[in-house]
Amino acid sequence: MAAHALDSFLSQAAARCGAMPVATGAAIEPRYLEAARYGAGQAAALLRPASVAELAALLPLAARHGLRIVPQGAHTGLVRAGTPTDAQRDLLLATERLREVFELDLLDRTLRVSAGYRLSEINERLAPHGLMLPIDLSADPSVGGMLAHNTGGTRMLRFGDVRANTLGLTVVTAEGQVLRLGRGLQKDNAALPLQQLFIGSSGSLGVIAEATFKLARLPRQQAVALVAPNSLDAVLPLYQRLMDELGSLVSACEGISRAAFEAALSCGGERSRWFGGELPDYALLIELSSDLPADKLDLQALLQGWLEAEFGERVADAVLGADAACWALRHHISEGLRARGKVVGFDVSLPRRHFMAFREAGRAWLAEHFAPAELADFGHLGDGGMHFNLVWPKDAPLLDEAALRAGVYALVQRFEGSFSAEHGIGPQLQQSYWDLSAPELLDWSGRVQRLFDPAACLGLTVWGPPPR
Amino acid sequence: MAAHALDSFLSQAAARCGAMPVATGAAIEPRYLEAARYGAGQAAALLRPASVAELAALLPLAARHGLRIVPQGAHTGLVRAGTPTDAQRDLLLATERLREVFELDLLDRTLRVSAGYRLSEINERLAPHGLMLPIDLSADPSVGGMLAHNTGGTRMLRFGDVRANTLGLTVVTAEGQVLRLGRGLQKDNAALPLQQLFIGSSGSLGVIAEATFKLARLPRQQAVALVAPNSLDAVLPLYQRLMDELGSLVSACEGISRAAFEAALSCGGERSRWFGGELPDYALLIELSSDLPADKLDLQALLQGWLEAEFGERVADAVLGADAACWALRHHISEGLRARGKVVGFDVSLPRRHFMAFREAGRAWLAEHFAPAELADFGHLGDGGMHFNLVWPKDAPLLDEAALRAGVYALVQRFEGSFSAEHGIGPQLQQSYWDLSAPELLDWSGRVQRLFDPAACLGLTVWGPPPR
Repeated sequence: MAAHALDSFLSQAAARCGAMPVATGAAIEPRYLEAARYGAGQAAALLRPASVAELAALLPLAARHGLRIVPQGAHTGLVRAGTPTDAQRDLLLATERLREVFELDLLDRTLRVSAGYRLSEINERLAPHGLMLPIDLSADPSVGGMLAHNTGGTRMLRFGDVRANTLGLTVVTAEGQVLRLGRGLQKDNAALPLQQLFIGSSGSLGVIAEATFKLARLPRQQAVALVAPNSLDAVLPLYQRLMDELGSLVSACEGISRAAFEAALSCGGERSRWFGGELPDYALLIELSSDLPADKLDLQALLQGWLEAEFGERVADAVLGADAACWALRHHISEGLRARGKVVGFDVSLPRRHFMAFREAGRAWLAEHFAPAELADFGHLGDGGMHFNLVWPKDAPLLDEAALRAGVYALVQRFEGSFSAEHGIGPQLQQSYWDLSAPELLDWSGRVQRLFDPAACLGLTVWGPPPR
Repeated sequence: MAAHALDSFLSQAAARCGAMPVATGAAIEPRYLEAARYGAGQAAALLRPASVAELAALLPLAARHGLRIVPQGAHTGLVRAGTPTDAQRDLLLATERLREVFELDLLDRTLRVSAGYRLSEINERLAPHGLMLPIDLSADPSVGGMLAHNTGGTRMLRFGDVRANTLGLTVVTAEGQVLRLGRGLQKDNAALPLQQLFIGSSGSLGVIAEATFKLARLPRQQAVALVAPNSLDAVLPLYQRLMDELGSLVSACEGISRAAFEAALSCGGERSRWFGGELPDYALLIELSSDLPADKLDLQALLQGWLEAEFGERVADAVLGADAACWALRHHISEGLRARGKVVGFDVSLPRRHFMAFREAGRAWLAEHFAPAELADFGHLGDGGMHFNLVWPKDAPLLDEAALRAGVYALVQRFEGSFSAEHGIGPQLQQSYWDLSAPELLDWSGRVQRLFDPAACLGLTVWGPPPR
């Protein structure tokens, strides 16, 4: 039955989208099935449409055949939302060939762009114009993937998340309707804001084909400092004074735990460059940036002056670095942790008022219940985001990951935080989503999903209550 | 039948919300029925709940009785969305007594606040902490009203619209469910973003009871200049260079036509102070602001230096003013126009690339088809928003307003603009919404509205296609 449905689908898809590359079974290249951080998936077929018209033909056809479309961008996500799981039923829809549109408007500072473009390519093409799409990540996602999960990143503090930079979407529904939502204007309230529903929906309400983004000016200067606060208790007050005094210039404020710091050093080999002395319990990477040139406002001097006022005579010890190597250290953390054992990642966020308290409670809870785990958290203190990551040593006993996750998320809940800050929801977090969401939220989210996808043929995330 | 339904509703409402003030028929104070700019409405009863619990009791009760709830904030809106129209069926729900919550978090820089608070009161209470809710308007709306229409304002260019400053909502559905949407965190993608649907929905999907806002720091200094560009063609290039060189400091860039300028002067009496000479065809009000004090970055000197570089020897003539009187002039425009005749307002927005071209096309179209009209546009050049307002002289023949609106909006459409930039949609724009929206957008918007309000008992805006 399923095989027959697939054959029928493929022959009708070929009739409507003749030029579209299709692969089935073992002919699907492994890179489409192997996720960034998890095990491989499986799919009945791989479809690679190149146009809105092909999407509009494929989606209703899949629904009619009882098959499921799993949209996949650059496959850099961390919640398995783009990794198909059903070898009979899943149609992996790679969006990488959706490249019909790249319309840059310099006066409006907007970019209309197809879902298949990747962040790096966009920013390479914008740089000569002094512009950028201000989403800053270690990964290189596609437009569609960033929208499906409403990506944040290290400079969200200044520029907002993907949602804040999106002025319009073109979406194809499960019925094959092409919805052009928003006109790409800065200010427009002439419709129900349906486009907002699709941002962060994990590709489950429709397939995003195009977006119009608001662009930002590339900074003309930046200043960086890696700082060791006097104590853990001093971290948040320091942050608060920074924001009060220099807030409009702060483009990143990242927190780095001692273990994360050490892991990064061990992999980058820069340790000797930083200190002879001891690593700090918690370090802050502060970045200022501005579109003013240094002859109008000298950011390096401003930051140095602020640090001197903060730390007084201690400043030489407190400032561990003040150049690009600080960011290199930050970006080495993940690699350094993986060298030490199995990394279990938690992408959570907390109200800033609970940020450090949660961290300490989490450390204590881990010590009690999962003693071999080494906490090596880092993240975006500025916006409350925390990668509460830990390393499970290679020689430790088998980890009960479900119990670990349940415990950490319960703690996040207790401190009024979110169990998914910037990675969105997918199969990886499905059970946690069910466990941690209010019944009325599940109820209404399920109603909305059924409205857009009554046949449950789009994506892997179930927004409603768990099936009985 | 209707009277019986009303009696039954009122007695049950009294049983559940005993402390709630209620008025019916002629006992309803006129201020609840008289809109800011339009004629008076009518309602069967006025309800003034004070709590989320009362809202949750009232909404399903109204639906069961076939009555319609019309939420009203401070009644400052301009699209009639808060002015009830049906003396038998409409229950005017004033949100002004919803004041249960005012929770300021200084470390998170967030405010959780009930829908009944007004913008001015919020900002008065935030100012001693050096904080603000950065929505800047001439009117003084309530929290609920601002959210229902996703208000913009004069500083949106820098701080974004209400949506951009909203981190969470508490909404009561027509069924009486209380949905707490979003946790008030800066970064949170652990749910379908249902809260986004309610922002800009004109109170038609549910009643917004509380919101959590992100707050901004009050600026430590501002610099203002009212500038006359060399010609109409010079306006956009001047704006573009401003944003390229000083963009991160620009907090407003307002455009003022000659007629709007003259109207403001005639009402404020400041004309002699500005010039002896002729008024400019188009003026720009530029505002810079910063959280840095002037000893770190002197905004006034920076702006003056930029203007000198732009205008050279002409600078003394080009800069018409550089103090708070510039904003007073801007805020006198509406009053000045009303003194000259009937004002017909169009709250539109355009892509910046078409901003000046639309203006000229609009002027030509008016001269041809509505010759007595005097165009006196002004607005938010920086974000593409334009109050394309015109004055119909008192002694001119009767105005065919429907034809005027249809013509102006057709032109807006041709220039890829929006017919409602920051005032939202309500009965005032209902027909235009139907005429100007794509069928598939009407279709899906109607489906979403029916999902949330199947009995059509909430609000006056119909998001679906026109009833046949």
